[in-house]
Amino acid sequence: MTGREGGADLRPAGNAPVVVLVRPQLADNIGACARAMGNGGLFELRLVAPRDGWPQPKAWSNSSGADRILDAATVHANVADAVADLHHVLATCPRPRHIIKPVLTARGAAAELHAIASRGLRAGLLFGPERAGLDNDDVAHADALVRYPLNPGFMSLNLAQAVMIMAYEWWTGQDETPPRELMTNETGVATKARLETFLTHLTAELDASGFLRNLPKRPGMVRNIRHFFQRGETTEQELRTLHGIVTELSLGRRQRGRVERDHDDAG
Amino acid sequence: MTGREGGADLRPAGNAPVVVLVRPQLADNIGACARAMGNGGLFELRLVAPRDGWPQPKAWSNSSGADRILDAATVHANVADAVADLHHVLATCPRPRHIIKPVLTARGAAAELHAIASRGLRAGLLFGPERAGLDNDDVAHADALVRYPLNPGFMSLNLAQAVMIMAYEWWTGQDETPPRELMTNETGVATKARLETFLTHLTAELDASGFLRNLPKRPGMVRNIRHFFQRGETTEQELRTLHGIVTELSLGRRQRGRVERDHDDAG
Repeated sequence: MTGREGGADLRPAGNAPVVVLVRPQLADNIGACARAMGNGGLFELRLVAPRDGWPQPKAWSNSSGADRILDAATVHANVADAVADLHHVLATCPRPRHIIKPVLTARGAAAELHAIASRGLRAGLLFGPERAGLDNDDVAHADALVRYPLNPGFMSLNLAQAVMIMAYEWWTGQDETPPRELMTNETGVATKARLETFLTHLTAELDASGFLRNLPKRPGMVRNIRHFFQRGETTEQELRTLHGIVTELSLGRRQRGRVERDHDDAG
Repeated sequence: MTGREGGADLRPAGNAPVVVLVRPQLADNIGACARAMGNGGLFELRLVAPRDGWPQPKAWSNSSGADRILDAATVHANVADAVADLHHVLATCPRPRHIIKPVLTARGAAAELHAIASRGLRAGLLFGPERAGLDNDDVAHADALVRYPLNPGFMSLNLAQAVMIMAYEWWTGQDETPPRELMTNETGVATKARLETFLTHLTAELDASGFLRNLPKRPGMVRNIRHFFQRGETTEQELRTLHGIVTELSLGRRQRGRVERDHDDAG
C-alpha cells in the first residue's frame, strides 16, 4: 500500500498525544515509528536517551516521507523530563507484573485520549525499547498502562507496529466511516423502480425464449431470479450493462426466429 | 515489545481467514507479515507469484519466530488459484477508483470475517505488492474492498503494517477484554468499609496534629480529603501502605509531644 510520499505535510492537529520512545535502539525503527505516527495522525515525537544518539540519517530514510515528524523530534535525558509538560501519560506494556495500575485496551486508551484532548489537556504515550520494553521506573510515570489484546501465544510485537496500532486506534477513534458502504464512483445506486424495469425486460425475454414455459413453476422461477438480483445494491451503470447483456443474448434467438420464419415462408 | 519467540506454537485455530500476499517483493516483508499474522491469530499464508521466488531465508530471519506460518505457506501462480477453495474474498485497497464494490473499514471487515467464519465458510484477505498495490484484475476477484480509515494526508502504509491492522482487528473482533480495568495482581480492590477505616485513621491523626483545628472549615476539608482518596479504586495493599504512611508521619509529633511533656515535667 503506497500513498503520498516524500516530505508529506504533517503538522500537529489539535491536541493529539505525544509519542515518547524510551531508549529506542535502532534508527530504522524510529523512522518506521514516525511513518506509523503519520498514518494515524500523531505528529509529535520525543526520544528518551536514544541508544545511538540523534539525529540518525537511517531514521529519515526509513520514514517514507514522515520527515517533518523526525525534524521536529526532541531528545530527553529521562522519562520525567520527556513528560514534564503533559497532563496524562499512558505506557504501553505487554506483560505488566507486580504493579497496581489501570490497564486499558488500545481502543479503550484511544477513547480516553480523545476525552483528554477534548478537555484541552495533553497526553503522552510511552513505548519501551525494542527488546526489553519499559522498565518498572518508566511505568511508574504513567497514569495507566495500555495492553493490546493480541494472541497470547505470540505477543512479539515490533516497535513500529506497536506505534501503528495506537496511531490507528487514535485515528479511528474520531473517524465516522461507515463499516460497509457501496462505492459507486461515477454512478449511483439504482432505485427499485429501475431494477423492476430490468426484471420486466429479463422476464419478457425469458418468456419469449421459452425458459419460463413451465407455467406452474413460472412464479417460483421468477421469484428466485428476483431474489438473486435483489441480493446487493445494484447501480444504474450495472443495470445498463445487464439490459445490454439480456438484449444481446436474445439477439441470436430473434435472428434465428427470423431465419426459421424465412425458412417456413420458403417451405 | 517482545514476547514468546523462536518457533512459536502457531497452529490454525477455527476458521481464521487466509492471508494472500499478491506478488510480494521483499522476503523481509513476507517475514514481517507472518509475524503480524501470528500476533493477530491468522495462521494460513498464501503467496501469489513472489517476485524473488520461494522459499527465501530472509523471510524466516525477519519473522521473530513465526516459522510455522512460513513453513506452511503455499505458492500460487495467480489470484484465481490462490482463492479457489475460499468462499469469500476481501481485498485491501487504499485508493480504489472506477470500481463499483462494497468498501469496508478494517473493523467492519473483521466483523464480517467473524460472521463468515461462524457460518463454516472460509475467507481470504488479499494484500497487494509493496509499491503498486493490487491491480484492477486482482481486485475483481474480491467480494468487497477493505480501506483503512487513516490520515488521508499520509496513507503510505508498510505491507506488514497493513497485515498487522487486519490481524489486530481480527483478534480484537473476538476479544472481550474490558477497555479499562484496574490490574491488582497479588492484592485486590478494597471495599468501601476498608477505605472508611483508613479515612477514620487519617482524620484522627489530622485532628490530633491540629491540621483540622479550624472547626467551621473542618467538614469541608474532611470532605475534600475523602474526594481525593475516592478518585480511583484503591487496593488492600495500597490501604496498608497508606495506614503505614499516616502512622509513620504521626510518630514524630507523638515523640515530640512526649519530649515536650517530659520537658514540661522537668520545667
